[in-house]
Amino acid sequence: MADFPIRFGIIGCAEIGRKVSRAIQLAPDATLSAVASRNVDKAVNFAKANRFPPEAKIYGSYESLLDDPDVDAVYLPLPTSLHLKWAVLTAQKKKHILTEKPVALNVAEFDQILKACEENGVQIMDGTMWVHNPRTHKMKEFLNDKERFGQLKTVNSCFTFFADSDFLKNDIRVKPDLDALGALGDAGWYGIRSILWAADYELPKTVTAMRNPVLNEAGVILECGASLLWDNGKIATFHCSFLSNLTMNLTAIGTLGTLHLTDFIIPYQEHEASYTTSTKPDFNELVTGWARLPSEHTVTVDLPQEVCMVREFARLVKNIKKNGAQPDKKWPTISRKTQLVLDAVKSSIEKGFQPVEIVN
Amino acid sequence: MADFPIRFGIIGCAEIGRKVSRAIQLAPDATLSAVASRNVDKAVNFAKANRFPPEAKIYGSYESLLDDPDVDAVYLPLPTSLHLKWAVLTAQKKKHILTEKPVALNVAEFDQILKACEENGVQIMDGTMWVHNPRTHKMKEFLNDKERFGQLKTVNSCFTFFADSDFLKNDIRVKPDLDALGALGDAGWYGIRSILWAADYELPKTVTAMRNPVLNEAGVILECGASLLWDNGKIATFHCSFLSNLTMNLTAIGTLGTLHLTDFIIPYQEHEASYTTSTKPDFNELVTGWARLPSEHTVTVDLPQEVCMVREFARLVKNIKKNGAQPDKKWPTISRKTQLVLDAVKSSIEKGFQPVEIVN
Repeated sequence: MADFPIRFGIIGCAEIGRKVSRAIQLAPDATLSAVASRNVDKAVNFAKANRFPPEAKIYGSYESLLDDPDVDAVYLPLPTSLHLKWAVLTAQKKKHILTEKPVALNVAEFDQILKACEENGVQIMDGTMWVHNPRTHKMKEFLNDKERFGQLKTVNSCFTFFADSDFLKNDIRVKPDLDALGALGDAGWYGIRSILWAADYELPKTVTAMRNPVLNEAGVILECGASLLWDNGKIATFHCSFLSNLTMNLTAIGTLGTLHLTDFIIPYQEHEASYTTSTKPDFNELVTGWARLPSEHTVTVDLPQEVCMVREFARLVKNIKKNGAQPDKKWPTISRKTQLVLDAVKSSIEKGFQPVEIVN
Repeated sequence: MADFPIRFGIIGCAEIGRKVSRAIQLAPDATLSAVASRNVDKAVNFAKANRFPPEAKIYGSYESLLDDPDVDAVYLPLPTSLHLKWAVLTAQKKKHILTEKPVALNVAEFDQILKACEENGVQIMDGTMWVHNPRTHKMKEFLNDKERFGQLKTVNSCFTFFADSDFLKNDIRVKPDLDALGALGDAGWYGIRSILWAADYELPKTVTAMRNPVLNEAGVILECGASLLWDNGKIATFHCSFLSNLTMNLTAIGTLGTLHLTDFIIPYQEHEASYTTSTKPDFNELVTGWARLPSEHTVTVDLPQEVCMVREFARLVKNIKKNGAQPDKKWPTISRKTQLVLDAVKSSIEKGFQPVEIVN
């Protein structure tokens, strides 16, 4: 397979593109083929700083990169408000799309992008990395284990980080014309995704925003949260913020077991990742201590999670290019569900924190 | 001081009384003096099983214990619905009161109990043990540290345990005539207390119940949750349940730091207790890992937390008896605030999950 790598072009020189450039270089079936910026010097510097191969092409416009026949797939780290235009164009140019999250500003835009991908037979996948970590698969085995975990009852997910004054003034994630979804689109995307992941991607029935969203002067969300409710009584809550110390906790509680970790999005270390589980831990007889402690599990991560993500995306693209397969529907379906819940949180905030029904 | 211990009488033979009997025996300034049950055989067996001193008195009625001049203080592990009657009577008999939580069915009852205590100059303290663990004091130092923790932004607290069918059918905590507050009064009390503790006992402005309370056929809460909101934008959430695997997580996030532990109510082990803190942990340069890991702190617990609780209560009672001090107001004030929030959660559920203002 290594003789036929997927050739990536990168549109835009966002910070996150550095990490993904490295991931493309480390992934077995992928290679860096081109980078484009509206400012060609930026693209030159980006390619140099990120050790692009000498044969990689540098473009001063996104369009020229999209016209390059030596680009199979495009990684799109642009601000969310630009996704619709550039993802649709990328699809029309028959390039596969690995896009940063949130995929779109709302589900309507998401569906336009998806339609373009379907019409042009291209793969789309969002850039949520942690779901590709081998740890995530091990944790899912635990959640699926009726003996050790039982039936899922509740999930709590929290992702916060403390943005400095420069971020709060200048970052694209606080600008209504760039990443209008703010902390909800950025940090909240992970919280929502982690809840859906734990719930086997079963959509909740209703979403109710917490009564505490913090908005900046331009109306962009800097902090918010919500509760998600399913018909069978499952409940999940998440909290996301640019205003609190870096914290990323995920707890999923079943009837018989509990999964817990405090680094679910970015593991503390690149090459190993841990989580704890407990199954019916109980107290000792006088309830002065626990009968069994939660167990810590450590998973060796041979390839960093973002490399696993690129590998998975490249696998799907190869399957289309080499075997004439149809684009995979699993990842776009999961992305869309994440976007649906995200829309519902926003809508609940706008409706004065009333519960919003999720209509798929 | 040991020559003048506080003499405890216990009213009722509840399971939790075993743990507290042991604590009274282990506490430096306390001794077990009497036990009463409406069934005298039960009291005899309780005294024997819990190694009461041979001179301890056994009563077949609560009233007779309250009339015993050799009893200074009464530990009250009765079902909540009986607290009003017996706490008021205990106070009128000039006995100090260590009562199980919830203190009362609602704040109105709480205030009647408090009034009786004040009128009779007796101390009242509720039986929340974890706040007396030396770990709790260490954790509070962290939360108070403006350099390491900054300003409190959010708290998430969760206490769930999986009750078996016998519990769900027969335990006093599922009976409307005994512990009518169910999981909210039992597990939820801890969640609310932990939030108030983290917030320096500043009451929230509003409380909004989550839209998921599970009630049994008799209308007793088996699972619920709520969000608490302060004027300055602080938000806290808690979840409590009899229907999910044993889990007790507490996370308090400040602008600069995070406190986290997963055994806040009953430490995993009796003689040492841990928690983690992080201060501006940050990511490494490519955001493929964390620049600093959270630190784990372990506190040696010379006396188990329930013994610390008895010691604190005995200290206050001694101060009244020996030094003629007034009853301490700190603990009853904290109890009352917990009860106020508990009432608000219940009220929010009854009002269709509308926010309920806290009026102190």
